[in-house]
Amino acid sequence: MRTVFHEQLHSLTVTLSRMCGLAGLVMERATDALLHGDLQLAEQVIADYEELAQMRSDAEEAAFVLLALQAPVAGDLRIVVGCMQNVADAERMGGLARHVAEIVRRRHPDRTLPTQVNGVFAEMGRIAVDLGNSAKEVVLSRDPEQAAQIGRDDAEIDRLHQHLFTLLKDDGWGHGVGTAVDVALLGRFYERFADHAVEIGRRVIFQATGEPFDA
Amino acid sequence: MRTVFHEQLHSLTVTLSRMCGLAGLVMERATDALLHGDLQLAEQVIADYEELAQMRSDAEEAAFVLLALQAPVAGDLRIVVGCMQNVADAERMGGLARHVAEIVRRRHPDRTLPTQVNGVFAEMGRIAVDLGNSAKEVVLSRDPEQAAQIGRDDAEIDRLHQHLFTLLKDDGWGHGVGTAVDVALLGRFYERFADHAVEIGRRVIFQATGEPFDA
Repeated sequence: MRTVFHEQLHSLTVTLSRMCGLAGLVMERATDALLHGDLQLAEQVIADYEELAQMRSDAEEAAFVLLALQAPVAGDLRIVVGCMQNVADAERMGGLARHVAEIVRRRHPDRTLPTQVNGVFAEMGRIAVDLGNSAKEVVLSRDPEQAAQIGRDDAEIDRLHQHLFTLLKDDGWGHGVGTAVDVALLGRFYERFADHAVEIGRRVIFQATGEPFDA
Repeated sequence: MRTVFHEQLHSLTVTLSRMCGLAGLVMERATDALLHGDLQLAEQVIADYEELAQMRSDAEEAAFVLLALQAPVAGDLRIVVGCMQNVADAERMGGLARHVAEIVRRRHPDRTLPTQVNGVFAEMGRIAVDLGNSAKEVVLSRDPEQAAQIGRDDAEIDRLHQHLFTLLKDDGWGHGVGTAVDVALLGRFYERFADHAVEIGRRVIFQATGEPFDA
């Protein structure tokens, strides 16, 4: 029989899981907005972020109440504390999607990206969804294999991010300084998005196994 | 008479305070390394960051032990949880200083900055030290007036950050794409540094007063 405490703990974990999935979805939308110069979608992303911020705030308060009323110890305490830390990472992932959308909005009606880098961002957006979904699953399953997938996706984002910098260093970059700056910042937003997913994966596996995990 | 618990709680708060001061100091060093192309100082910053990361890890564990063994409630619990969240922000401030140092290292022996923007970064570096010191003090004093100073410094960093983008948009930017990208990323690192200080100030004042604080 499950105690009320464990039901509340499960509910907190489910919220965290939903936040991770939503963060991936929001980054997917931000990427679509970027690739198509879609202002309406960019505005949607900015609204979606507010939902994630509210979810974080609610989850932090729920975790606080659990600590205050139930005074969990050992493994249960690690899960509550880990959830508090992980919801901050998931919110930040949404915040980075919002930054992408803000660049789209600032540049509208101009497109932000030269065709040359469209494919790189399309690929980073695709991986971002995977990262969100992997984080969504790993916080429920606590499966090191799923956490390892987050690490592989992160390495792929890093590779694409480095590739962007190679293009920007190239004397052949013919799209002006302003666009180069946008591309550099956008690349950084995707890289940081992946870093936060890695952080969630690492924390969940450490909680589950007590061993550091090199995701 | 102070209980052992309150001594431990005070010790945790002192660690957080030291981390905030150190984060400011590290950003000051990173700024000096940037302005003078000083590789040795940049390496020092990267080592300093490791110290901050270790302090965060130790503080999180100390906070966890406090929760597990003392099961604090109400205001004391808010302080422990807030410390856990704040040490993450303070570590991240050090991480952003490390990013500045990494750009210096990557560019060495070239200078990173054109003279035109030296003054802006010198000013951002000066404010970063103030932000670290204000955060250092506010976590001990819980004084809304000190938190308000963090807000004013953050607004000043935002203004300088916007000014950089004006220079980068200008058709007269004559320092090439690579340097523009560095300047844009550097500006973002200082802006994020300030954001984390604001977050610490806001959280401390909310804990102390129960009222949201618009730092």
